[in-house]
Amino acid sequence: MSLVVVGTMAFDAIETPFGKSDKIVGGAATYIAWSASNFTRPVKQLSVVGGDFPKEELSILEARGVSMEGVQIKENEKSFFWSGRYHLDMNTRDTLDTQLNVLANFTPVVPDSYQDCEFLMLGNLVPAIQLSVINQIKNRPKLVVLDTMNFWMESALSDLEEVISKIDVLLVNDSEARQLSGQYSLVAAAKTILEMGPKYVIIKKGEHGALLFNGDQVFFAPALPLEMVFDPTGAGDTFAGGFIGHLARTKDISFENMKAAIIVGSAMASFCVEKFGTNRLRELTKVDIDNRIQQFKDLTKFEIELSS
Amino acid sequence: MSLVVVGTMAFDAIETPFGKSDKIVGGAATYIAWSASNFTRPVKQLSVVGGDFPKEELSILEARGVSMEGVQIKENEKSFFWSGRYHLDMNTRDTLDTQLNVLANFTPVVPDSYQDCEFLMLGNLVPAIQLSVINQIKNRPKLVVLDTMNFWMESALSDLEEVISKIDVLLVNDSEARQLSGQYSLVAAAKTILEMGPKYVIIKKGEHGALLFNGDQVFFAPALPLEMVFDPTGAGDTFAGGFIGHLARTKDISFENMKAAIIVGSAMASFCVEKFGTNRLRELTKVDIDNRIQQFKDLTKFEIELSS
Repeated sequence: MSLVVVGTMAFDAIETPFGKSDKIVGGAATYIAWSASNFTRPVKQLSVVGGDFPKEELSILEARGVSMEGVQIKENEKSFFWSGRYHLDMNTRDTLDTQLNVLANFTPVVPDSYQDCEFLMLGNLVPAIQLSVINQIKNRPKLVVLDTMNFWMESALSDLEEVISKIDVLLVNDSEARQLSGQYSLVAAAKTILEMGPKYVIIKKGEHGALLFNGDQVFFAPALPLEMVFDPTGAGDTFAGGFIGHLARTKDISFENMKAAIIVGSAMASFCVEKFGTNRLRELTKVDIDNRIQQFKDLTKFEIELSS
Repeated sequence: MSLVVVGTMAFDAIETPFGKSDKIVGGAATYIAWSASNFTRPVKQLSVVGGDFPKEELSILEARGVSMEGVQIKENEKSFFWSGRYHLDMNTRDTLDTQLNVLANFTPVVPDSYQDCEFLMLGNLVPAIQLSVINQIKNRPKLVVLDTMNFWMESALSDLEEVISKIDVLLVNDSEARQLSGQYSLVAAAKTILEMGPKYVIIKKGEHGALLFNGDQVFFAPALPLEMVFDPTGAGDTFAGGFIGHLARTKDISFENMKAAIIVGSAMASFCVEKFGTNRLRELTKVDIDNRIQQFKDLTKFEIELSS
């Protein structure tokens, strides 16, 4: 039984108020794999890259237990490319350039060896591709988690709604939750989204943490207060990787364990923003991760004696 | 030994996207007294009102253990009046009208019976008045907490800096912390503010919770995710009242107990926003408050087993 991750493996060029990167390795599935492979292996990757994607990146990930059997390499094409510039608040950004390249005609093919999929992580991608993967997997996975974004709400809402009706956990940020639900209050937005199919919705609020909703239950996970956010690119994907990585490791999809999974995701995301691209994720040790999770415990723990 | 509260007792007229209030009772010290008196009595009030301020409001508060000896009543003058309109986000607002009235020439006089002050809560007010109160109290209180706002940073910064140098805990919201420190990161802002005098700084982030900083330690308190914020007026003052009320009740000013105090403040603030003005605070029972504090416990509690 295994974790299957669908998403882009790509190039990014990033500008922040603090610096500018060259064209560096990025993509939702790349960040998810770097993050999730700390907790569970194998991570079975489903993606497409061009001949320009560094072979050594694939090798390094393979050495971490990330299977590349489902990654199509189109030698004569170019990898997906995104370029963006972050504003001072590091929460908002402008897209400077998007080149679909290999993604334009991507048809995912789920290898037979991926049919043991127990946890399916649908990284941010064209909803029709996400749907194709769901439909190719013969036995319904134990848990299907979907990450998406406002772009698909505007350009492919009906496909997206179909995907949302088939999943267990939806990951969106606060403005996306409002857009998808037409509700301003995040509590009301979550209620509306839960009626669309998923049993759980996680609303990510960047530096303000994340909320998990399930029926009438709610859990709040803080973000670590950071002196410096260097580059937020991939933080959401890294969160998703930590979240599903923890669930796949523990094989426990209860509400209680989802709380823990969100803390793991938040801890991983807090590393991601410390350096450009995946750089910080590449150097992490188990001890780094455990220490960071301990910081999250300390951050919100309190004792209180009720007055009456 | 007692809690002394300094601040306005006044009238507000409030517009929100959901409704509009008449001219209703408000003022920082009013909200603080309503909130703190759930936890500690007496609350010794220091303020000024005009002849138009309802005598029955003073009586109701007195019946709750709020001493009015330090409240000057200027029968021939009018009470302070503020009118504002909230935007859809309920975090930002426009001031429509401000009439200083009795506040224009207010000289606070600390009664002898207030000299046993152990906890001093300086509600949002002209810094020179806050300073006068500090200077009139002969024995340095165990804890001095200051609430202030951007208006005084713009109009009376040097007085404000003097007040800040003499207090223990500063309460500000996120944009005020940035303005006061000149730092965008709230972690960096808190460091700068801690160098100005206080041992603790609490940065309130409205619906995103609050952060407590003390040296290198940090604690994060969530806000309760609410389906409906009806009127945010007084939420910060109500928070301050719950915070200092809990500390005055327990007489424990350790970092650990300040965490609990912030949760109590957050719980009280979560009630305040449910109705216009002080209406929700007037009907609260101990059981309501304990249940709400329990909700805060449940909201952030998690168990996690480290992977390594």
